[in-house]
Order: sequence, then structure tokens, then C-alpha cells
Amino acid sequence: MKVIAEFTVIPVGTGVSLSEYVATCERVLAGTGLHYELHANGTNVEGDWEEVMQAIKHCHEVLHEMGVPRISTIVKIGTRVDRIQTMDEKVASVRAKQ
Amino acid sequence: MKVIAEFTVIPVGTGVSLSEYVATCERVLAGTGLHYELHANGTNVEGDWEEVMQAIKHCHEVLHEMGVPRISTIVKIGTRVDRIQTMDEKVASVRAKQ
Amino acid sequence: MKVIAEFTVIPVGTGVSLSEYVATCERVLAGTGLHYELHANGTNVEGDWEEVMQAIKHCHEVLHEMGVPRISTIVKIGTRVDRIQTMDEKVASVRAKQ
Amino acid sequence: MKVIAEFTVIPVGTGVSLSEYVATCERVLAGTGLHYELHANGTNVEGDWEEVMQAIKHCHEVLHEMGVPRISTIVKIGTRVDRIQTMDEKVASVRAKQ
Repeated sequence: MKVIAEFTVIPVGTGVSLSEYVATCERVLAGTGLHYELHANGTNVEGDWEEVMQAIKHCHEVLHEMGVPRISTIVKIGTRVDRIQTMDEKVASVRAKQ
Repeated sequence: MKVIAEFTVIPVGTGVSLSEYVATCERVLAGTGLHYELHANGTNVEGDWEEVMQAIKHCHEVLHEMGVPRISTIVKIGTRVDRIQTMDEKVASVRAKQ
Repeated sequence: MKVIAEFTVIPVGTGVSLSEYVATCERVLAGTGLHYELHANGTNVEGDWEEVMQAIKHCHEVLHEMGVPRISTIVKIGTRVDRIQTMDEKVASVRAKQ
Repeated sequence: MKVIAEFTVIPVGTGVSLSEYVATCERVLAGTGLHYELHANGTNVEGDWEEVMQAIKHCHEVLHEMGVPRISTIVKIGTRVDRIQTMDEKVASVRAKQ
């Protein structure tokens, strides 16, 4: 099952700056071969359900190994069976109607 | 890795009433043996990362088989390595401080 | 416009325990007269859009005054114009179909 | 109070294609003067708390006027008092550490 997902990782109980941890998750994603895009409030990623979820889990594991005691992550997961759609097509579809 | 999670399944492209689909997901959860709690804006569930995520995936699969063309799901995932905590303890911890 | 909402406040850059802050937000809500329910992953609240959003904003203000440097909050907002619905009715509607 | 926010509007009980409604919300945002960015899973927007929330409320109002019976919106709200930060700076801060 293909998904278009977004995840936002919020390390808790560490310092106020989170960019080091977000950068670490980006490196985890870079190692997966999945297509992903960082934005100001999270990271969009598309691919097979299992691969996307494993990447997010791996991100949690790596951050905990770095010493983060607690993590709150928000994931949006979109699936559709009426047609295949990519992240780029979603954005293009909106822009075409603006 | 243990998680305390919440998921909210939003079927898109079907009717305005979603309770039938939420009830179906509750039955999926009931079949897993995981501890879960329905509330007005989603379902809380705790357990092993893999089992929780598989349950959510299974919910998507069943709803698509029922004819739902598109699903948007929001998942909150909490992990912590400083100590073990249950959903009931989270709520009790807040109530003790109110 | 009436809303059924949920919010989860995640204080960042403080300690690993967040229950003190969640309890503070519950007291803010208690002062509003709005109907709300704490659960393991957030707080459900229903009422007028403006009142609900003001309560969440007030919660941010109070936590920042307590010394929390950074807050990430996730809000789910549900509105519908086909009929009036309460949080209790949402849950009852699902349970009736289980 | 300044916020960096993200919102994802999910019209329920309409067709499976949502891009028309997302485009409408983008036009609502364009009329506010707020800085915003569409991405594949939502729209990032920054500015004063009140203005950002009013824009999201206005989006709900316009979609309901278009005939959407029910809307589920997910909002992420970030506030911080340790320093001023923009959406562009958040992304740049992560990229500098990758």
C-alpha cells in the first residue's frame, strides 16, 4: 500500500533547539532511498507503508540513542485506492486551481 | 519499542457520517489484543510499535475493502526511554496535579 | 461556528515530565466554562470556535509565563453544518455500530 | 504572540478530490497578507496568533458556503519566547546541520 505521509518529530526533555534532531532524521530518511521533502513544520515522504513507517521508527531509535529521553511524533498518512498520486501531483493539482 | 499512540481515521470521498468506519476500526483493534480507548476525536492505543502500526494499517486495508476511496489518518506516537508509562498513568499523573 | 476540537500541548526545552503543564492547561479550561475531557493523548473540548481557540491561546500564554520557552501544539478542529453534534454523540454513534 | 503554524483541511462528505477546496483556502490566505507556503500535506503559515487562526476559521466558513458539510482540520501551532524565528530560518537551521 502506497502512502503520502508527513511526520513531525518533537524531542522532549532536551534543549529548546531541535534542529540537530530533525537533521538526524533527515539523514535517516536519506539512507532509505525514499522520496522526501523537509518543510518548516515537518517532513513529507512517500512510498510503501512499511518502508515509510520503518523510517520513522528508525528515527525514534536513533534519537533515543543520542540521549533524547522522550519523543512525540505526529504522522499524517494518506492512502487512496481510486488512483495513484505523488506528492508533486498533489501540489500541482492545487496550484492548477488557484 | 513501546508506544502510546492515538489515531484518527478520516475517510474521504464517502458520506458525511463516519461512525460506521470508526466502528470498523474499533473492531480491528479489538481483534489485536492491544489496549485501546475510543474518545471523541480518535482512539488511544498502547503497545509495541510494530503491533500498533500494523493495526492502523489493517484498519486502512479494511476500510478500502469496504469501498472507501481515500483515507487521511493522523497518528500521534509517543516513545520514552527514561521510564515505562501507560496511558492510564499519563492521565493519573495530570489529575494528581490539578 | 461550533467546533469539536482536541489539543495536545507539548512543552519543549523543559524537563521530560509534562504533566504539570497539562494540568495547568486543564485549569485554564476549567475557568472557561467549556465542556472538555482529558484523555491520554490530549484534551477534547467543544464550543464556539472563538472561545475554544482563545482557551488554547491562553494555555500557551500561561505556560510561557511559567518559563516554558517553546510549545508545539496539535489541534484537531471539526466543524459541520449538516447537523449539530456533541462529543458525547460522536462516541455514542460509534459504539452503537460496534 | 507570533506563531509558526501548519494547517491541513480535510473536507468530508464531498468527492474524493480535495484540491479545489485546498485552492480555495490558498486564496483565503492570499487575501490576508500572511506569509504562507503550500506543501504536499498542508500549508505552513506564520504571523500573529489571531490573524493565523482567523484565516483558518475563514477557510472553514468559505468551504461550508461552497457546500462542504463537514471539515476536519489539523493545525500545528508553534510558539517560542526564547527568540524570534521564521519558517525560513527553521528550515535553514536544519539544513545547516545535515
